[in-house]
Amino acid sequence: MALTNCVTLLTDYGLEDGFVAACHGVISRISPSTRIVDITHLVPPGDVRRGAAILAQTVPYLPEGVHVAVVDPGVGTARRAVAVAAGDRVFVGPDNGLLSWALPDSGTRAFELTNSKLWLEPLSATFHGRDMFSPVAAHLAAGLDIAAVGTEFDAADLVMLPRPTRRVQEGTADGEVLTCDRFGNVQLSVTADDLHRIGAVTGTSLTVTLGRRTLTVPFGETFASAPPGELMAYVDSVGCLALAVNSGNAAQRLGLPPGAHVRVSVTSPSMH
Amino acid sequence: MALTNCVTLLTDYGLEDGFVAACHGVISRISPSTRIVDITHLVPPGDVRRGAAILAQTVPYLPEGVHVAVVDPGVGTARRAVAVAAGDRVFVGPDNGLLSWALPDSGTRAFELTNSKLWLEPLSATFHGRDMFSPVAAHLAAGLDIAAVGTEFDAADLVMLPRPTRRVQEGTADGEVLTCDRFGNVQLSVTADDLHRIGAVTGTSLTVTLGRRTLTVPFGETFASAPPGELMAYVDSVGCLALAVNSGNAAQRLGLPPGAHVRVSVTSPSMH
Amino acid sequence: MALTNCVTLLTDYGLEDGFVAACHGVISRISPSTRIVDITHLVPPGDVRRGAAILAQTVPYLPEGVHVAVVDPGVGTARRAVAVAAGDRVFVGPDNGLLSWALPDSGTRAFELTNSKLWLEPLSATFHGRDMFSPVAAHLAAGLDIAAVGTEFDAADLVMLPRPTRRVQEGTADGEVLTCDRFGNVQLSVTADDLHRIGAVTGTSLTVTLGRRTLTVPFGETFASAPPGELMAYVDSVGCLALAVNSGNAAQRLGLPPGAHVRVSVTSPSMH
Repeated sequence: MALTNCVTLLTDYGLEDGFVAACHGVISRISPSTRIVDITHLVPPGDVRRGAAILAQTVPYLPEGVHVAVVDPGVGTARRAVAVAAGDRVFVGPDNGLLSWALPDSGTRAFELTNSKLWLEPLSATFHGRDMFSPVAAHLAAGLDIAAVGTEFDAADLVMLPRPTRRVQEGTADGEVLTCDRFGNVQLSVTADDLHRIGAVTGTSLTVTLGRRTLTVPFGETFASAPPGELMAYVDSVGCLALAVNSGNAAQRLGLPPGAHVRVSVTSPSMH
Repeated sequence: MALTNCVTLLTDYGLEDGFVAACHGVISRISPSTRIVDITHLVPPGDVRRGAAILAQTVPYLPEGVHVAVVDPGVGTARRAVAVAAGDRVFVGPDNGLLSWALPDSGTRAFELTNSKLWLEPLSATFHGRDMFSPVAAHLAAGLDIAAVGTEFDAADLVMLPRPTRRVQEGTADGEVLTCDRFGNVQLSVTADDLHRIGAVTGTSLTVTLGRRTLTVPFGETFASAPPGELMAYVDSVGCLALAVNSGNAAQRLGLPPGAHVRVSVTSPSMH
Repeated sequence: MALTNCVTLLTDYGLEDGFVAACHGVISRISPSTRIVDITHLVPPGDVRRGAAILAQTVPYLPEGVHVAVVDPGVGTARRAVAVAAGDRVFVGPDNGLLSWALPDSGTRAFELTNSKLWLEPLSATFHGRDMFSPVAAHLAAGLDIAAVGTEFDAADLVMLPRPTRRVQEGTADGEVLTCDRFGNVQLSVTADDLHRIGAVTGTSLTVTLGRRTLTVPFGETFASAPPGELMAYVDSVGCLALAVNSGNAAQRLGLPPGAHVRVSVTSPSMH
């Protein structure tokens, strides 16, 4: 089965150096017809968890093909470099959990990148994105069988990031802060399904506990569910509960780091 | 008539999340051969006026095709989503004035996006760029007739941003600050034609009143018309009068917000 | 000989305006099949030296073709605009040294851009990237003979940036700070070859003098050669000695500007 001739890139390389262009160049030199789509290169340096979240949330909208992800503080150490086949997609990157949230629960095949004939020569110790991951991805996009990249191993041995906390019981949904986006919207691990289970419906209010604070916020569909400058809650474009300030920045307002615990319940009438 | 198979994107989505890539992916999945050109994704969040200015100033240099623009603080509310045909170009985005400065004064046809068969399913309430505008644009770039996107309405009913202030009388040109670019150059709504009408020619000086300050600055063709660190005025690459500091940053020096009033006249000899 | 149909772009235009898109658009309108690769557009405004370093370090990984570079504080003045052929590559930009570190020492041919028929009309005085360099590059990528861009002149007359300081004697290597990347890694002009000549081998320590400070740092292959938070030295992905902090930011720690002098020697056992 041939993959779509497309490579996507997600890294923490930033845009002010030539690192991303070097990866584009390596891919284009090996496979000139490959389409390259940049997911983002502004993952905070070394933030594997943030990279994992963006990758998992974006991949469903991308063409099938090869998805290279490199947030790799352990580059050059014993951490494994891998390619993981999942249906019509192949994920390529370090085996440090970065890929894990984007992978389906079953049906994957994992390969360690050991075929050095596919890499640039000499291999640098600190830029495997350019010298190893990009050329391997280019060869795969151009039709190379994944078995040629290296040694297959049990996909159960891939490093998995722990799934974000998420629990529903007795009318409350517990979760954590996943990410904050450019608009300052704070995405939580609580899902639309969790909200359904606790009986939350848009048009009512949610009681949200963040550390020591407890807030009551309108639960709406659009930012306009609250007056300008006011907090509101909504189900975001990937199905997670999120907190926003209409025409403002909820992340700045709330000051919550990723991983912070949150508890959500439907506001009881007596609390109004 | 077939459009050029090209989609351009202008948004306030930023580059640190996967939002832009999701739009690219949606377009490529629908129309793999479409070329995608990013205008910018760093419009300040919600700054419709700034997005409108960049779009209008950049479009003349872009290939014909479909121009998607999304700066959409009212996403999911009653604001209309539209496609506007203008010659060999189609503009797609929210009907909040963002498109208005890029449209010709006549000869446009406006359609409300009502054909939900073209959209992603389910449609999110807060990411119409991904779920509505991108797929509609991809179908148009791939050859869909614009009449298929929805219901035509009178283009005179499109929301128009007020044109920037601009008036010439008695030897003075009044205008306002339009934008400040990366270099700190301050673009004004006063045009080369206005300058011609008040008798300004390069090589002389202009008297520029900004709020309570009145400055006399050389009017030159290049930044080198002033010594390093000094203010000068020039006609910029889109034909507007602009203020710059040679090897410096005029926006920081002057501290003028977009919309601030300016008055320009030819410096009289006695003022030297 | 036909060039590869690829144009790369390196500028200081930033990403928040429509400047880069205008260049893309101009190229695509002239030569729709040309692939465009962005090297970076975040060179600090006017920083010719930084642009020159990124260009030289990235070009070896890029497809052959036309490399446009525009960091051009003297735009519109008497500085020459040039195209320089070097094997299967052509470099296009201002003749201010920006191209110089990417050029081979011999075998180049230099042309001044004088054929205004290739440019946009009217030519702006301040945006030659859009109006002159991009269209010339597009024509070259589409197959135009380089002799058609203008008048050939002696390549020895090209403006050359001074090469970074670099000297080896009596067991010490002298050099300077070249650049700091996104990760805060501080790249020096001291090369792997220089290190070899002073007898430095990974696994030992280097003594590095920076201004008044003298540091002893482990010399390793990967960032993990030092404990988290500690300084280390390594040969980076382009063959230069660099200083890093494992999981940290050496540039912030050391506060060294580009050009700062450094001296490196192998740490003598008695110094431990």
